[in-house]
Amino acid sequence: MAKMVVSLSVTPLGTGSTHLSSYVRAATEVLRELGVKYRTAAGFTDIELDDYATLAEILKRIEARLEAMGVKRLDYIIKIDRRMDQELTIEGKIAKVER
Amino acid sequence: MAKMVVSLSVTPLGTGSTHLSSYVRAATEVLRELGVKYRTAAGFTDIELDDYATLAEILKRIEARLEAMGVKRLDYIIKIDRRMDQELTIEGKIAKVER
Amino acid sequence: MAKMVVSLSVTPLGTGSTHLSSYVRAATEVLRELGVKYRTAAGFTDIELDDYATLAEILKRIEARLEAMGVKRLDYIIKIDRRMDQELTIEGKIAKVER
Amino acid sequence: MAKMVVSLSVTPLGTGSTHLSSYVRAATEVLRELGVKYRTAAGFTDIELDDYATLAEILKRIEARLEAMGVKRLDYIIKIDRRMDQELTIEGKIAKVER
Repeated sequence: MAKMVVSLSVTPLGTGSTHLSSYVRAATEVLRELGVKYRTAAGFTDIELDDYATLAEILKRIEARLEAMGVKRLDYIIKIDRRMDQELTIEGKIAKVER
Repeated sequence: MAKMVVSLSVTPLGTGSTHLSSYVRAATEVLRELGVKYRTAAGFTDIELDDYATLAEILKRIEARLEAMGVKRLDYIIKIDRRMDQELTIEGKIAKVER
Repeated sequence: MAKMVVSLSVTPLGTGSTHLSSYVRAATEVLRELGVKYRTAAGFTDIELDDYATLAEILKRIEARLEAMGVKRLDYIIKIDRRMDQELTIEGKIAKVER
Repeated sequence: MAKMVVSLSVTPLGTGSTHLSSYVRAATEVLRELGVKYRTAAGFTDIELDDYATLAEILKRIEARLEAMGVKRLDYIIKIDRRMDQELTIEGKIAKVER
């Protein structure tokens, strides 16, 4: 259970190749290292989080990882679903739609 | 295989309740009726499409469905990943990140 | 007055340079040619539209323009604010927030 | 000059009215109080920032403000344009597209 579900997409710009999955894998490694609960989808990775400071830490670490791979510019697209009235889970959100 | 993967989120506004999954289920029904390939995630639904006109048709039908449920305002958030150099699949995109 | 305000961002991927404004200018030219009302912001371009088919036409034409410039992959990020209860304008939305 | 331009949209969910500008004005007040440079557009507010921690602080304060207004659930949509190779300004990004 978490206070928010964050859907995150990172796109390196100007890399010279249309093949970008190595960068997305590097970003996913950061999530694994931090031990946050996540689930990969095609356009975004859903992440269960309890506060915005952890999101900021994730963004900072992914940037550092991609910069070490030679990336000079990147776009993040983020959707945050924050409920104050009840806790959320990634699987719970999906189950409610699919039932 | 498809020319683009579209990640789609629909949010009804001003409904008076924080429980929105019935609206998202109605939107997913439209995808099933149209026979497009899709996969539900927590923040977005990924859809394989070959042209923008089909996306426009999806948006129009979801709006009509939600309006019939009493919705007076809605937000769509859409990310389109369009490759001209090779075809895409939802599962292929996920597999490349997870391997 | 329009039925929806669409906030649109287009990002060419794999271009080999972090300088992307020539592509965004080309996309803006498409809006001018189509005669739709728009306003440029830093992250997105706001556009007043009355139907999803016109949005599909815009996306198709921008893709063609960028492909002619050598782009092999692109991301669109789109937010649609659609009100069924009253018509919208870009300036009206901004004025309500700034007053 | 800033290290990133963040385009931010906040949407309160389940408020019972389609009129949401009072909430967006409250969010803009937070930006003014923090003294960050911003510019209102129709779909998003562009903000010049130097680090992700300040973004986290903004998100936390806007949530608190909206919760005090009775909001029980909210969506943030965020696009971050981060350049490591040169600094950015909101006005510079717009000028490059419009020239």
